[in-house]
Amino acid sequence: MPEAGERQLLLAVQYLSLDPYMRGRMSDAKSYAPSTPIGGVMPGEGVGVVLRANHPGYREGDTVLAPTGWRTHAVVDADGLRKLDLSRFPAQTALGVLGMPGFTAYSGLRVIGQPKPGETVAVAAASGPVGSLVGQLAKHWGARAVGIAGGAEKCRYVTEELGFDTAVDHRAADFPALLAGACPDGINVYFENVGGPVWQAVLPLLNPFARVPVCGLIAQYNATEFGHENLLPATMRAVLTKRLTIRGFINYDFAAEHHADFLREVGEGVASGRFRYREDIVDGLENAPEAFIGMLDGRNFGKLLIRVQSA
Amino acid sequence: MPEAGERQLLLAVQYLSLDPYMRGRMSDAKSYAPSTPIGGVMPGEGVGVVLRANHPGYREGDTVLAPTGWRTHAVVDADGLRKLDLSRFPAQTALGVLGMPGFTAYSGLRVIGQPKPGETVAVAAASGPVGSLVGQLAKHWGARAVGIAGGAEKCRYVTEELGFDTAVDHRAADFPALLAGACPDGINVYFENVGGPVWQAVLPLLNPFARVPVCGLIAQYNATEFGHENLLPATMRAVLTKRLTIRGFINYDFAAEHHADFLREVGEGVASGRFRYREDIVDGLENAPEAFIGMLDGRNFGKLLIRVQSA
Repeated sequence: MPEAGERQLLLAVQYLSLDPYMRGRMSDAKSYAPSTPIGGVMPGEGVGVVLRANHPGYREGDTVLAPTGWRTHAVVDADGLRKLDLSRFPAQTALGVLGMPGFTAYSGLRVIGQPKPGETVAVAAASGPVGSLVGQLAKHWGARAVGIAGGAEKCRYVTEELGFDTAVDHRAADFPALLAGACPDGINVYFENVGGPVWQAVLPLLNPFARVPVCGLIAQYNATEFGHENLLPATMRAVLTKRLTIRGFINYDFAAEHHADFLREVGEGVASGRFRYREDIVDGLENAPEAFIGMLDGRNFGKLLIRVQSA
Repeated sequence: MPEAGERQLLLAVQYLSLDPYMRGRMSDAKSYAPSTPIGGVMPGEGVGVVLRANHPGYREGDTVLAPTGWRTHAVVDADGLRKLDLSRFPAQTALGVLGMPGFTAYSGLRVIGQPKPGETVAVAAASGPVGSLVGQLAKHWGARAVGIAGGAEKCRYVTEELGFDTAVDHRAADFPALLAGACPDGINVYFENVGGPVWQAVLPLLNPFARVPVCGLIAQYNATEFGHENLLPATMRAVLTKRLTIRGFINYDFAAEHHADFLREVGEGVASGRFRYREDIVDGLENAPEAFIGMLDGRNFGKLLIRVQSA
């Protein structure tokens, strides 16, 4: 068991969040964050209960959101953590709809997507923690929401539970035609979190001046080869002739300016039941690798969490 | 000889502008402007002298900027044209440094590129009418200007005459390494007007949060195949991990907001000699097709103009 130093906390991790960005930490390709060395602790956010507090702002039994990594217990610096108020929301929502995935949806759609009333917003992985909020926020802000998801059950959830206007199954053989039919007025905002074949189907549907926030490319994270057709010229041609904006972002780029608004607006929506969310909870840290591999394959249904230990 | 109707002018065309965008009009691929039908008149901007004026704002002998097309004489609607003051600038500058190419450079760099003092701005076709002003404006606004051009003579012109900090020959065998050496602090703004191999060399040098205004892709306009390596995933990965902004634009998207500033600022710079420009003038409308083909191949040196007839 590690020892908490000065201004540190010892946590018993309850929930560990598994997120696609972690795939980049398992690769030595240059990215915005360092790779995890062989034998190192995989990074990740968790919620944990304080077992020992060496900081005046915390005491034993508090629940905090912290960069715990893939661990049952973690010593973390206390300064800058977020203490969770369990009377308002379940602890693990700080890892999902009210956490990094939720803020990714909110900030990318608000700052880059900028949907106007009546416009069409399309998003893939629409039953996942980012996509589900993108579509619900699009509706909330007056736009039309088109979800893309894998399989009939997820598509049904996206329309019936989340209230998207329509959903399209990207596994259908005629997916590009189905997507075109679902977007009779084209697409004004495509929130890109998957890449790959979905992008190829979206590209011809994008309207002039469409905005494409890019927060993830899960379809290509595990790929080792990308086919023998150079698809870049067609994308660049569309950028030019349709005057597209394609902009990558990481949620924390926008935290200083927008995180407080996010917690307030989305928190109110979650509390009132307007914004729905779904969790896919797997028990046991030992099952995290397999669950993570499954997520990259679309086998999770909702925000993927590892229940490391019960409170 | 065509007849001018009401509120129309009959013009004798002096100069016709040849610009890469015209390649799109010769293709039936969907774009922001319609294709030219077989047997139709190729569109294009020209400066012409009024032979007959059926409009109270004009009289015979005036020189105007007008959408003349590839013609020796043209009848044009007078409303909305620009009458040129020849006491300040030569007429043909309205087709180059003070015309569409100049405004493309100005608006794309100002609105999308947003170079900050000390940042590095790179631009290809740097001896051409767009690239040459991009680099000079970058310097004017406090940034470092790196030009990319084809051949030693153009590179020398870019540094010695236009005052770019450095220039790199994209025909050199080790062009990617030379470009990397020319950009020791990376690239903050890449003004994209060519695409193709230059983009592949630029991509690894782009800094986090780099901006990429896209106004042209001349390297791919004539291509019929793009190789057997899919280069899109690497570009999208860079967009994500470096949080790039790639944004296409057409100069007139920004005209309402920025054209008056452009004419004032760049006009002052041209008048004072701060902003230099170079023209590549070919005599005779019958030589326009060959000159146009040569431009797509980089054989022009400066703004390509057809002198249709002397004033």
